[in-house]
Amino acid sequence: MQDRSGKTATDIEALIDLMARLPGLGPRSARRAVLHLIKRRGQVMAPLAEAMAEVAATVRECVVCGNLGTSDRCDICTDSRRLTSELCVVEDVGDLWAIERGLSFRGVYHVLGGTLSALDRVGPEDLRIPSLVTRVREGGIGEVILALNATVDGQTTAHYIAEALEGSQAKVTRLAQGMPIGGELDYLDDGTIQAALRARRGL
Amino acid sequence: MQDRSGKTATDIEALIDLMARLPGLGPRSARRAVLHLIKRRGQVMAPLAEAMAEVAATVRECVVCGNLGTSDRCDICTDSRRLTSELCVVEDVGDLWAIERGLSFRGVYHVLGGTLSALDRVGPEDLRIPSLVTRVREGGIGEVILALNATVDGQTTAHYIAEALEGSQAKVTRLAQGMPIGGELDYLDDGTIQAALRARRGL
Repeated sequence: MQDRSGKTATDIEALIDLMARLPGLGPRSARRAVLHLIKRRGQVMAPLAEAMAEVAATVRECVVCGNLGTSDRCDICTDSRRLTSELCVVEDVGDLWAIERGLSFRGVYHVLGGTLSALDRVGPEDLRIPSLVTRVREGGIGEVILALNATVDGQTTAHYIAEALEGSQAKVTRLAQGMPIGGELDYLDDGTIQAALRARRGL
Repeated sequence: MQDRSGKTATDIEALIDLMARLPGLGPRSARRAVLHLIKRRGQVMAPLAEAMAEVAATVRECVVCGNLGTSDRCDICTDSRRLTSELCVVEDVGDLWAIERGLSFRGVYHVLGGTLSALDRVGPEDLRIPSLVTRVREGGIGEVILALNATVDGQTTAHYIAEALEGSQAKVTRLAQGMPIGGELDYLDDGTIQAALRARRGL
């Protein structure tokens, strides 16, 4: 009896330790989340464990673009309604999801898997940059949209890619920089205001 | 192919929805957590799913005190080194864990499962108050320590229990109120300062 009970305390603690490693959760919030799950172990915890095991077992990266799916090619790459002539380059699958939520982009993607970083020793070969260059050189792509984050590493990566794609048929563009919709001048940083001023457009 | 891929997108979305229901996580942080898990699906996601399924399947509440374990009686109730004469009453298993982390309490517990609340229509029968009264009336308990939160509901519950235990052999005590260790007067609320002043002690 002692042994079995001791084992569970350790089971719960092991679960808390694993949960605490998730981004956005620390030891305290992991404890709270686990208690919350245990209280709803039938309705929430068991389905969550099952969903997690299912995704862990079946998910893989698309060989073409790096998006997540269960097959070699993701559902965007295999969707015949998507325009293969417009290629949107993103850092991460999370960024792809963000653009898909906007519902306005009908092209296809290329997920780099990060950004170049001298500090973290991330070079082009550590990302999907060689396969991007090959994909563009193979032709059929009219525009490469660099939808990278407006961070130093993101913009460095954008410039590197733009240079690597020089001489190809594809036009290379990047996302506009300026005021966010609903943004107030007084709360914007100076860099954004300057970028918005420089890129001002006629009405 | 389309179907299988479509299924996964839904699998991942279903997992995000389930994760977003955890306290401390919203839709955005759930997405980030799931992406983090997928990136480490072998080392983190599969073990986490397994640990969660294991706990969901085996955990149950101790019939004596309401603590969590795998047997009818938890490892504190079955530990012969614990003093059964000191009974610490807590609202929640999380509070029990907090006291156990302190390593200084050697008695046993009684987990109420919440507090009385007129607003949420929680009465004594919805909590482990009747079983607490029975447990104390059965004898052998010298002191009942009411370690309830210093909230209105916590203190209402403490007063209710103290009245319900009147006439029993057990001495009823509650946690001291005052300055937290390391606390600075200037940052304490007025209620705490007043409580600390009222309960001042000789040096």
